[in-house]
Amino acid sequence: MERILIIGAGLMGSALSVHLANNGHGVNLWGTQWDREIIKEMEDRRYHPALNVDIPENINLFYDDQLEEAFKDARVIIIAVIAKGMKAICQVLKPYFKKGQIILTVSKGLDDDSLHTMSRVVEESLPQGLRGQISIVKLGGPLIAKELAKDTYSEAIFASKDIEAAQYMSILFKSPKFRTSVTEDIDGVEICAAFKNTYAITMGILEGIEGGYSNPKAALMARAVDEMGKIVAAFGGRKETAYGIAGLGDLYVTSLSGRNGRFGQLIGQGKSKDEALRLMDNATVEGLAMTLNGYSFLKALEGEGRINLKEELPLFYQTYQILHQGEGVEKAVEEIWKVD
Amino acid sequence: MERILIIGAGLMGSALSVHLANNGHGVNLWGTQWDREIIKEMEDRRYHPALNVDIPENINLFYDDQLEEAFKDARVIIIAVIAKGMKAICQVLKPYFKKGQIILTVSKGLDDDSLHTMSRVVEESLPQGLRGQISIVKLGGPLIAKELAKDTYSEAIFASKDIEAAQYMSILFKSPKFRTSVTEDIDGVEICAAFKNTYAITMGILEGIEGGYSNPKAALMARAVDEMGKIVAAFGGRKETAYGIAGLGDLYVTSLSGRNGRFGQLIGQGKSKDEALRLMDNATVEGLAMTLNGYSFLKALEGEGRINLKEELPLFYQTYQILHQGEGVEKAVEEIWKVD
Repeated sequence: MERILIIGAGLMGSALSVHLANNGHGVNLWGTQWDREIIKEMEDRRYHPALNVDIPENINLFYDDQLEEAFKDARVIIIAVIAKGMKAICQVLKPYFKKGQIILTVSKGLDDDSLHTMSRVVEESLPQGLRGQISIVKLGGPLIAKELAKDTYSEAIFASKDIEAAQYMSILFKSPKFRTSVTEDIDGVEICAAFKNTYAITMGILEGIEGGYSNPKAALMARAVDEMGKIVAAFGGRKETAYGIAGLGDLYVTSLSGRNGRFGQLIGQGKSKDEALRLMDNATVEGLAMTLNGYSFLKALEGEGRINLKEELPLFYQTYQILHQGEGVEKAVEEIWKVD
Repeated sequence: MERILIIGAGLMGSALSVHLANNGHGVNLWGTQWDREIIKEMEDRRYHPALNVDIPENINLFYDDQLEEAFKDARVIIIAVIAKGMKAICQVLKPYFKKGQIILTVSKGLDDDSLHTMSRVVEESLPQGLRGQISIVKLGGPLIAKELAKDTYSEAIFASKDIEAAQYMSILFKSPKFRTSVTEDIDGVEICAAFKNTYAITMGILEGIEGGYSNPKAALMARAVDEMGKIVAAFGGRKETAYGIAGLGDLYVTSLSGRNGRFGQLIGQGKSKDEALRLMDNATVEGLAMTLNGYSFLKALEGEGRINLKEELPLFYQTYQILHQGEGVEKAVEEIWKVD
């Protein structure tokens, strides 16, 4: 039994808490200032309404002003905030980082400013003396929070340059219904986790153009996985990571449900970006920011001669053109469907 | 413009006819003895009720006793019968095979007796003097007939050892909304086309156990593609074929709709094979026969030391155990989810 600290009481942080508590671990779930209400509700009712599960007794709940207590005895720290909040939260956590800790990141995306992966953002936040003394692990794979909390059959992959740390995380998480594997290709897992958000929008766009048909989405699925493989390879990771649970597995689940796909559908139906967001009550569509960040990220790789954005990644390129350059959906899709 | 003969007026044969006719080609659509009614209906109404599309004027319709006329001027022959009927139909067509023809096979499965791929069944049916004189091409990829007939965005791959024949077929089929590619890996495409039927059942089973959840299906999707890659490689094809449109693309579409998935769901809900089939009005579930054929096929590969069925292909193995060895769903899924 391990004492695990989870940073962020959003749906994913809370679902991970439930899973790990059910696995017999002691969990400290710490909420940010935006999580006060849900922490209070879980504290009062020992129940999570959105996840629709009870909160096990071995989850201790902590408010944003109780970070020091929350860190007590915790050697494993799971950061489950949104990608946008990653850099800031690391600065908050920094004073509590200690030699021998393992930090697991769950967030999917690239940092808005530096365009660095989530793991790298964590690494860069470590005080000089702690670099190499704290292991950083990335969680990849298709995990819908609501399903995880209900203990559906699931599979995930733990990635770290410190493979023993990845294996240790894998042991903490695994259960008869939660299958795990490990890889050293943390860059590959990070890239897949981030870019699948864009590709889920692309698949949604085609679904919007041709309501409910499957042939177009299936065609895009294969090409999206291929493009993710190319990006991973250009970034120095293993192309095969994109063909596995972190790439195609995660894209599959994202394409079946979620806001990226819904947003893409509205765009495909001819709505403007603003209209689409309005129709979605201005919910956060992660793929929208990710496409912007991804474009700059890929432009930098292109500048180093490692990839040709327009030629090798037509799905990504055209999705960027639609979302951020005002290109018409029809023209973009025509380009995507053109045989080279 | 080419004159193309399509053998079999089932949904797929008819949909391919409509697509090729819309592409400007002359199509001779020949129905087997089981297609008489639909040929009559298309002839009378110039409309296909199940596909819900008009039958273009440049499709000529032929009854089963008009095979000789149907072959007239046709250099490209597309065989679109079910896998089970492939060997028999080739014997019927044999007298009409001629040097310089291209035969495209669409059927997905393995021959019940020989366990050979569809392309190989065609090849073996060629008179000795014509071997090497007729090019055999395989169509792979995610194509739902109803969608194809309606000209949704689609993508397919043409595979042949005669790459020029594959390229020629690709030219006949391609259109602004129908994207094509070619490969020499005809064995890989055949394997994916056949085995995806089993994996769609596996995904359906998990959907049946845990109604409507996505995490389990996403996890299986990644592993199914990995297993298909292993089978392809063991059979001498290119593993990468499984990661593309013929493998993951086709599995994606099959997992979203169709009888294999539905059948799997019923099995996952605890129905027996017979009950499940009864609830589906005894519709043909291709994956059921395919799992039996696939097992024998893999046993033969295993006998040659090229694969370890139980260790390397747990999804396939356990699905076979459930469907054909009376193994309980729970025990089988437990085995599938176990970490090696």
